[in-house]
Amino acid sequence: MAPAETPFRGPIPPLPKGFLVSGLHSGLKRNPTREDISLIVSDRPATAAGVYTQNLVFAAPVAFDRDRTPGTGFRGVVVNSGNANACTGAQGESDTAAMASLTAEAIGSLESSILVLSTGIIGEFLPMETITEGIRSAANQLSADEESVMRAARGFMTTDTRPKLAGESFGKTPSGEKYQMLGFAKGAAMIGPKLATMLGLIVTDAAITPEDAQRLIFQSCDLSFNCVSVDGHMSTNDTVLLLANGAAGEEPLTGKNLETFETALMNTCDTLAREIADDGEGATHVISIEITGAENREDARRVARAIADSPLVKTAIAGADPNWGRIVSAAGYAGVAFDPGRLTLWVNDFELFKNASPVGFHAEKVSKSIQENRESRIKICLGDGPGTIRFYTSDLTAEYVRLNADYHT
Amino acid sequence: MAPAETPFRGPIPPLPKGFLVSGLHSGLKRNPTREDISLIVSDRPATAAGVYTQNLVFAAPVAFDRDRTPGTGFRGVVVNSGNANACTGAQGESDTAAMASLTAEAIGSLESSILVLSTGIIGEFLPMETITEGIRSAANQLSADEESVMRAARGFMTTDTRPKLAGESFGKTPSGEKYQMLGFAKGAAMIGPKLATMLGLIVTDAAITPEDAQRLIFQSCDLSFNCVSVDGHMSTNDTVLLLANGAAGEEPLTGKNLETFETALMNTCDTLAREIADDGEGATHVISIEITGAENREDARRVARAIADSPLVKTAIAGADPNWGRIVSAAGYAGVAFDPGRLTLWVNDFELFKNASPVGFHAEKVSKSIQENRESRIKICLGDGPGTIRFYTSDLTAEYVRLNADYHT
Repeated sequence: MAPAETPFRGPIPPLPKGFLVSGLHSGLKRNPTREDISLIVSDRPATAAGVYTQNLVFAAPVAFDRDRTPGTGFRGVVVNSGNANACTGAQGESDTAAMASLTAEAIGSLESSILVLSTGIIGEFLPMETITEGIRSAANQLSADEESVMRAARGFMTTDTRPKLAGESFGKTPSGEKYQMLGFAKGAAMIGPKLATMLGLIVTDAAITPEDAQRLIFQSCDLSFNCVSVDGHMSTNDTVLLLANGAAGEEPLTGKNLETFETALMNTCDTLAREIADDGEGATHVISIEITGAENREDARRVARAIADSPLVKTAIAGADPNWGRIVSAAGYAGVAFDPGRLTLWVNDFELFKNASPVGFHAEKVSKSIQENRESRIKICLGDGPGTIRFYTSDLTAEYVRLNADYHT
Repeated sequence: MAPAETPFRGPIPPLPKGFLVSGLHSGLKRNPTREDISLIVSDRPATAAGVYTQNLVFAAPVAFDRDRTPGTGFRGVVVNSGNANACTGAQGESDTAAMASLTAEAIGSLESSILVLSTGIIGEFLPMETITEGIRSAANQLSADEESVMRAARGFMTTDTRPKLAGESFGKTPSGEKYQMLGFAKGAAMIGPKLATMLGLIVTDAAITPEDAQRLIFQSCDLSFNCVSVDGHMSTNDTVLLLANGAAGEEPLTGKNLETFETALMNTCDTLAREIADDGEGATHVISIEITGAENREDARRVARAIADSPLVKTAIAGADPNWGRIVSAAGYAGVAFDPGRLTLWVNDFELFKNASPVGFHAEKVSKSIQENRESRIKICLGDGPGTIRFYTSDLTAEYVRLNADYHT
């Protein structure tokens, strides 16, 4: 029932210094070729920070990680896919703690140094025997090679059709080299603000204070993962973690180095966020929505989100239909005050609407440009305010419905 | 491309006294068997009230009607389908006024006594020659017979698969009979709060003050059409009008008669609202969502709407999948404070979730009950507050996507 897989696009980015990773199939997923447990381990204590779902109904690992971040002394992250350990009550909480203990034991560390990420089906208890064996085997396979990075990335996936990785190098280490950053993510569905239904983990060999880590991961998520919507459904498990181990330089970053870190983190999150929209369930288009001229950023975000969440806009793009009425009317119900008479709309750089009236445009040409490009660009200028945002979503196809209507229980 | 039509279910309700109606094909729709102009005319001045879209981008007829209601002295409503006359600037405004003038002239009344309803594609100018001929012919065909009522109802339709009518009788007229009420509506898509993308027109032969008319149509819409979502996309044209002509009793209703009017109006709106969800584009299920135990009605409504708008919930019902995790997690992101540990969920009276944990239930049985019934009932108790609401939506099928991804421009 799961969609066909495609390989990772492009070269595999390097793993930052001091990290080892692994990924394997333990039995949580039915298909034995699909990894479902990953370990990401630092050879020294790392600073960690996180951003979490705002859903009142949050999974056990979310509560677990949220309680211990931001902080220092972290040695590893254990990831499982195929089971979200959400809506599982007290049993779910003790299973999460057990995952951390098992990981700590396997890598020779303390339970308090481990973070846990889970994704998959809601409301089923974790098969702890399978998990236990999986974690022990994964600890025995830790490596820094490319194949292990790819396997670890695949261990995050649920209905993603491809692993999601993004790498950046930045700044200048004490030995004159560059720091490395590597981000893992998964997305696919239940993708909606705040935070997509997604897991993200970004590791770096730079050192950074817990305060900077928390501030910057929050800021980067706000402009990347919080600007992605596949289906507007906020998940129980959304989590983005940052781990900084200082293996390439022990002193916490400051000044110019901290600035380059900030840019690298923003780029990493943005690349992964766009990948999540591009790989939305059943998607045939990734849609970027750029709003300018709003009163402020939150107004711009609300307009972008109303457009991104409209099934009528998403099906129009799937059908290569430059149906600007659906886009303009979605902007109109976003709950943001603006003058519709000043709104201008472009799709793929074709001007479609201006001065409260349709503009004469060559519909076939616009349709062809939607058909021929994987990315569709919707751009709206609301007026002359300073508020701007870029938002990503995917189109809505019959394949999305097929994937989600399949009886699984 | 349009879906197949099915006839009206059940007997055609009677037309209230003093009204004449007609419906015909003028040429706005391509299919010559589909009515696209309707007239609803009162033989004497009627009181009118209305409720309108809250979209900033509203159509010309919305502005036109909103300016003149509530009020008295109304003689008719002209309805066209196939063209929404939205996003059409100053031309759209003068075309709406022209529709009113033409109707007034054809029935021998004043322009100020006419209201206009338009629905259909956004952003195209009305073909006024076609409309002019259509209105004149429709005025020549006015009648009180059942066939004319059915034709008038069909003139409201866009992608609806069937005409929507609801009738009620209530109270006691001076001559000892019952007052009649008849409601017309159209729905299908762009159905989302506030107000579905819908047109509604309710006519009655009772008399009522403009103040009562406005108060009661607002109240009834709030608990009916504002509790329907097919795709969460609020339209540019949403309008519900009430016309009360006093043909069965000239004195405005008071006391017990007014109370029975209120109930009849609520029932009429509720029947039409449920019909709109049931006839949602591509729908194979109508889903009723009942929320109880919320702090207040608005909290209950927000939770219901989050569930109703979740594509994951809607596809699960389409697939007869009792995927309670999707329902519970949608409640969790509604932006309403509640204790998830106190939430109880039933689907079709099967208890699925309680005390923050899954309940053992027979998944095949629940699935079978979803499969075998056109209506699926989702019921959530959030706690012990007094807030309740009932909300209607439809499931999400590949057919919805097909209907909306078809290239039309």
